[in-house]
Amino acid sequence: MADPLTSVVLRLAYDGTAFHGFAESEGVRTVCGEVRAAAARVTRSEEISIRGASRTDTGVHALDQCLRLDVASDLGAQELGRALTSLAPDDLEVLSHRPAEPDFDPVRGAIEKLYVYRLWNAPSTPVLARSRLWGYRGPLDLSAMREAAGSLVGTHDFAAFRTRSKGETENTVRTLRALEISSFGPELAFQVIGEGFLYRMVRNIVGTLVEVGRGARPVGSVAETLASGDRRLAGPSAPPQGLHLVRLRYEGEPPCRPLTAPLAF
Amino acid sequence: MADPLTSVVLRLAYDGTAFHGFAESEGVRTVCGEVRAAAARVTRSEEISIRGASRTDTGVHALDQCLRLDVASDLGAQELGRALTSLAPDDLEVLSHRPAEPDFDPVRGAIEKLYVYRLWNAPSTPVLARSRLWGYRGPLDLSAMREAAGSLVGTHDFAAFRTRSKGETENTVRTLRALEISSFGPELAFQVIGEGFLYRMVRNIVGTLVEVGRGARPVGSVAETLASGDRRLAGPSAPPQGLHLVRLRYEGEPPCRPLTAPLAF
Repeated sequence: MADPLTSVVLRLAYDGTAFHGFAESEGVRTVCGEVRAAAARVTRSEEISIRGASRTDTGVHALDQCLRLDVASDLGAQELGRALTSLAPDDLEVLSHRPAEPDFDPVRGAIEKLYVYRLWNAPSTPVLARSRLWGYRGPLDLSAMREAAGSLVGTHDFAAFRTRSKGETENTVRTLRALEISSFGPELAFQVIGEGFLYRMVRNIVGTLVEVGRGARPVGSVAETLASGDRRLAGPSAPPQGLHLVRLRYEGEPPCRPLTAPLAF
Repeated sequence: MADPLTSVVLRLAYDGTAFHGFAESEGVRTVCGEVRAAAARVTRSEEISIRGASRTDTGVHALDQCLRLDVASDLGAQELGRALTSLAPDDLEVLSHRPAEPDFDPVRGAIEKLYVYRLWNAPSTPVLARSRLWGYRGPLDLSAMREAAGSLVGTHDFAAFRTRSKGETENTVRTLRALEISSFGPELAFQVIGEGFLYRMVRNIVGTLVEVGRGARPVGSVAETLASGDRRLAGPSAPPQGLHLVRLRYEGEPPCRPLTAPLAF
């Protein structure tokens, strides 16, 4: 008789520096690949299915990621969760685990997400900050960036701010609940709250707002780019290491709010 | 005719995570190896001699390291310094460069050094902190650690707190000017100021003080260990990633003082 299915929901945090992103990819170290390897080791099963809330890229960090794991195993969900917690490598932490409800989907179940993009705006960026923030030395006009950011809040077709990738949805309408730019000393924290995001949307928005901030494009061009739906009119992606997936919100959890202090690490 | 010698003093900062330490070693990436490769590329010379102030281990970070470079080259010291500054990889920064006086020695010229050892004392350590702090979950008796630390301040034979290594001096007398344990929320910062240090001395002191803090050895045993000169009586080395070489002091530079706030990164 085949083993029954054990289904677990994991909330994870990771330092993205030494991962080639979240999604599994042949021959490189990924977050899902590490979880799969650990689950295979514990259960000796090869029937493992993994689905995650947010497909973060190489170098992107997560303080709260959600993953559903289904494994053919006679282990209980609690046992499996505990084993995966203790097997996690040093740059990946299992924050919590629980048995998955049969219909729980980490993507469709996510009500909100808070991303924080960290930029260090000073003539030089401390070496120990460089794997966590985008070092940008030139002057930036904060009020112009904030004005341009305001035109992106709300429900819009964000096609101009997504990078095309395999398997992405055709529906490019998304709702941004908040886009605040907080100034913490030399750090600018772009705090973005939304129900869902297109691939690279946050980094494309930040890259475009920085073009506004350095005077390379007018404030009004951001609303025009949004209306155009044309990716070529938006700015380049901001580099990955500044991006942090800070919080996910599922049913029964409190709303996402912008941070009132910079991230500590 | 042979090229004249170009001599430069570099002050460096580096994220130790991806370096196999400071000193050159065959087949691995080291701080001095990166500097040598850059100097060789700029000058096309193979006559390169490098001497650094502090031989930091794999994983140890530096916010202020000093290195003297002598290269057979017809480039001027300013040109060479500028070229090395622009060629530095992302995790290594040339903070400043200047021509070296003929008799300048980064080891003997150092009047003082400030090391800060960062420990995160909480049930769990944030993943993004783990390459910069020692995560220690158990309770620690801060006042016992401070009392024991007091017995190490001053001029002593620190043979019990050094790890033996090749080419090390036989004179094991050193002067600790300060050893403060600062409490910044969940972070304990062991701040150590001295004229010079033996190999692994700071990590061996921290490892021993943490044994006091967790009640595994009495306060008085630290003074006894110091008096014994016996390495086997001291505690284990604290792990490398918590150690930061924060400041060096040379002639004409202000005294080293303990930090009044935690390191930002």
